[in-house]
Amino acid sequence: MIIVADNLRITQPAIARAVERLDPGPIQRMAVACRNAGADAIDINSGPLSRDAEKKMTFLVETVQAAVDLPLVLDTTNPVAMAAGLAACRQPAIINGVSLEPEKLERILPLAGEHGADLICYLLRPDGHVPPDADGRMESAVALFNECQAAGIDQECLIFDPIVAPLVWQDGNRQNMANLAVIRALPDLLGYSVRSMAGLSNLTTGAPDADTRIRYQSAFLPMLAAAGTTVMLMNALNPKLMDLVRACRNIISEEIFSW
Amino acid sequence: MIIVADNLRITQPAIARAVERLDPGPIQRMAVACRNAGADAIDINSGPLSRDAEKKMTFLVETVQAAVDLPLVLDTTNPVAMAAGLAACRQPAIINGVSLEPEKLERILPLAGEHGADLICYLLRPDGHVPPDADGRMESAVALFNECQAAGIDQECLIFDPIVAPLVWQDGNRQNMANLAVIRALPDLLGYSVRSMAGLSNLTTGAPDADTRIRYQSAFLPMLAAAGTTVMLMNALNPKLMDLVRACRNIISEEIFSW
Repeated sequence: MIIVADNLRITQPAIARAVERLDPGPIQRMAVACRNAGADAIDINSGPLSRDAEKKMTFLVETVQAAVDLPLVLDTTNPVAMAAGLAACRQPAIINGVSLEPEKLERILPLAGEHGADLICYLLRPDGHVPPDADGRMESAVALFNECQAAGIDQECLIFDPIVAPLVWQDGNRQNMANLAVIRALPDLLGYSVRSMAGLSNLTTGAPDADTRIRYQSAFLPMLAAAGTTVMLMNALNPKLMDLVRACRNIISEEIFSW
Repeated sequence: MIIVADNLRITQPAIARAVERLDPGPIQRMAVACRNAGADAIDINSGPLSRDAEKKMTFLVETVQAAVDLPLVLDTTNPVAMAAGLAACRQPAIINGVSLEPEKLERILPLAGEHGADLICYLLRPDGHVPPDADGRMESAVALFNECQAAGIDQECLIFDPIVAPLVWQDGNRQNMANLAVIRALPDLLGYSVRSMAGLSNLTTGAPDADTRIRYQSAFLPMLAAAGTTVMLMNALNPKLMDLVRACRNIISEEIFSW
């Protein structure tokens, strides 16, 4: 289980200001903090970047990789920004991400092959909605796998994300139990050792306070780990969660145990 | 998922002294603390009770049920103490427990039918050893289920425990992953909605300190919960663990979610 920090987000005012002013300081401090906390990779969540998309994504990638030597996950719906970011990456990057939505298949998916990047595949329906159950997610996985195969993308580059549902959704808890089943079933379904991802922070959208957020994330993280989730996209700056990550890794590991 | 407190143990000196002196105070304070912490039932771990077994187990049962109105789990390998405890219980009790060991089958198992008690079935081999893998545990489950059927015990009374392995065992983490698979598989294997149990405290036998114990238990508890464990035998007096129990219950529940 590798940890991708989701902390570098343009929705944070300090990061938004830094990107606007092309000021590397706050961005690099965030990246270094995530690495020091134990993150294995860093998600650069730039949002859609409606103005100066290429310049800003290039700045973000260059800024982060000047500070930390970790793989980068490029998290934007803007294909122009994505292409610019991929071109700026010094080591293989991860595209976040594609789905069966036609625009994603047409404009994001081909970038994976062009840049030799890994590709996060969200198990959404073609209309962008989350399928209501495990079966819907499995159908999306097969359809998306076939699209990637048709585009010549190596199956080993794919990372499937069944979409963690916010608990406050009407059927959020039922959907998240379905997610565990999907993550367990994907290797059998697709016939190889499939990588999977979960965005843990999504679980607690709308939580009343930080304690509640961390408590529920702490309960769901080990469930995801035991189901075989390969990539955990999460808040890497919470020490309780990162301690829990280390304990989960030790429990699910096939290595000799030591405290 | 119901919580059985494992805190009332004769291995604790204060409890051992109280049993020796037939002093209800420390025992009742412990039982009340467990109930107040949210335990749904209380395990009375009396040990084998080599002297005055009947008198001491009767005292324990009467003492605890005078203080709290919770189901009791009678945890002794001594069939005489078990019979005395069952006779003293005012509400249906849980026998902890039987296995394929011949002595258990001959002397403990029949007590379940005689007293209309639930019965914890440990998935051990007939020689009392823990099977090395999931298959061994499943074989024990089928054999023990058949023994119980032959003895006329209602399948709804059975609670199967695949034995949480201490992480320090040479293959402890692999065995515990097997346990999750067994708990998930039991309903299909036995063809009904099987109840299962896990003794969480076993996980951290030999841990260097309390923080480490709680950290690893916090990582494994949600894994067990997501696998469908019905009965969690655990330290009910740790507030972090009990907060986590509540979060796990909310996540695995099919009820409408609320924080």
